[in-house]
Amino acid sequence: MGWQAFGDWGTSRLRLFRVEQDVPRERCEGPGIGALDAAPETVLREALAAWRRTGDPDAIRLTGMVGSRNGWVEAPYAECPIDAAGWARSAARLDLDGIPVVIGAGLACTRDGGAHDVMRGEETQIFGALQLQPALATGRHLIALPGTHSKWADVENGTIVGFRTFFTGETFALLRDHSTLMRAGDMQADAEDEAAGFGDGLARAAQDSSVIGTMFEARAAQLRAGRTASWALGFLSGLLIGSEVGVATAAASGATRICLIGDPRLVARYERALAATGLVVTSLDGDACALAGLELLGGAA
Amino acid sequence: MGWQAFGDWGTSRLRLFRVEQDVPRERCEGPGIGALDAAPETVLREALAAWRRTGDPDAIRLTGMVGSRNGWVEAPYAECPIDAAGWARSAARLDLDGIPVVIGAGLACTRDGGAHDVMRGEETQIFGALQLQPALATGRHLIALPGTHSKWADVENGTIVGFRTFFTGETFALLRDHSTLMRAGDMQADAEDEAAGFGDGLARAAQDSSVIGTMFEARAAQLRAGRTASWALGFLSGLLIGSEVGVATAAASGATRICLIGDPRLVARYERALAATGLVVTSLDGDACALAGLELLGGAA
Repeated sequence: MGWQAFGDWGTSRLRLFRVEQDVPRERCEGPGIGALDAAPETVLREALAAWRRTGDPDAIRLTGMVGSRNGWVEAPYAECPIDAAGWARSAARLDLDGIPVVIGAGLACTRDGGAHDVMRGEETQIFGALQLQPALATGRHLIALPGTHSKWADVENGTIVGFRTFFTGETFALLRDHSTLMRAGDMQADAEDEAAGFGDGLARAAQDSSVIGTMFEARAAQLRAGRTASWALGFLSGLLIGSEVGVATAAASGATRICLIGDPRLVARYERALAATGLVVTSLDGDACALAGLELLGGAA
Repeated sequence: MGWQAFGDWGTSRLRLFRVEQDVPRERCEGPGIGALDAAPETVLREALAAWRRTGDPDAIRLTGMVGSRNGWVEAPYAECPIDAAGWARSAARLDLDGIPVVIGAGLACTRDGGAHDVMRGEETQIFGALQLQPALATGRHLIALPGTHSKWADVENGTIVGFRTFFTGETFALLRDHSTLMRAGDMQADAEDEAAGFGDGLARAAQDSSVIGTMFEARAAQLRAGRTASWALGFLSGLLIGSEVGVATAAASGATRICLIGDPRLVARYERALAATGLVVTSLDGDACALAGLELLGGAA
């Protein structure tokens, strides 16, 4: 029976799916494209070796940093606005031992005022989401992928009109791991304090979205109001996510739905931050979206 | 001839001045209060030993983290609003080998909405600035100390009404040293590119003060618009300082003057960011302000 290899090959890991008749049957992991100790072909051959014992796949479809300048083969950024068909046409096509390989293109956009933005990997999940939730494919909606670099795409009748990256997750990690904000109090984790801090941070961001002028409150509250380090961590998370959600939704006044894609615990935080907006909020599993997006790339050269 | 020891004893270093008849004659440095390998008394004795050979000082006056809970002797935070006399009364007083020691109190404030803020050391420079620039001591003005944790004090008729900390300098250092924003391009320093990036960052912050949604442009412009790492570094600096200045001045609509205290190169960046506000901007040397502030503390127990 025929099968295909679908993969999300990012900077820090490779995730491969063995897909048979559109259904993922097995999965495996390998090293990220940013940390290879051999050529990408060699690493991919190794990752696929067990599955290939019963026969080669009909095609290999990949998304993520594998298509960047420092990846395997560069799939240049395709410019927004773009729909699924245009994106599929922009993919890089090559072969591995005679097996057709498709690497999805990243997307670029230029916002009013000339600011540039890029994504690589998330576009696959966004086009996949449009397949999985038909309600998203007509009208104007937001599709958000919370994470290290959160992406918010503005989608109109199935076309990605533009998008914006929020540096939320990485900023949070920098503040948590390297800043002086978290050095004032004890470090015992307390889920209740953390949740309270998250709510306080959201409320603060709603009053003032300039995180640069509110972050220090995480430390001052530990020194002056008896707050714990867990509270402060939650506060920073609420502050950053609240600011992101406030700015992103304010800029998209015409949208009626928002679909969140990603880790369920993180998505739950964004759902809470979005509760006050009045938008219809839905969510989708990241893997399901990636697979549905890779489906669109086609297989043959 | 009588002399006094004035000192700014922060987390990372001790800076001591030998003051004779209100004039600093000599200076020396020692280890910060956050990195001592002996008791604070011992370290201070060592730092003062050479000067004491010709006789003990009449008094020792200190400001900074030396007065924190983890310093030498805690000088609790005094609450805003507070004037120089109230602040001087709040100082901690002790002695070292019979020499009177005064440690200036830090300040705390609670903003509308309940947010807490603290400073320790900067208040001495602010009260010193009010001595050095009489025009600041009547009417409503802003005194800003750009730095790792920038402080903006709201001063009315010589009283510090409240203040706000911006996490600008530390955020910039985190982004420069630990983030993925600076990993895209070459790392050759280019002062011209850096200056151009700073201007672009200021302009961007004027359009949008939510740094969380604009920081990633530093990376995207390297990937898409041929910008150098130097440009990106300048852009981030402009973005953060522009956001800080925008938020701080918007919140102080009644102020007519702003006085900047600190490192001249950093102050020059803030002057550029403030050019569009129409405020009268002056600047003062940090050491001169600290010494003038310590002067206010009085010497005797």
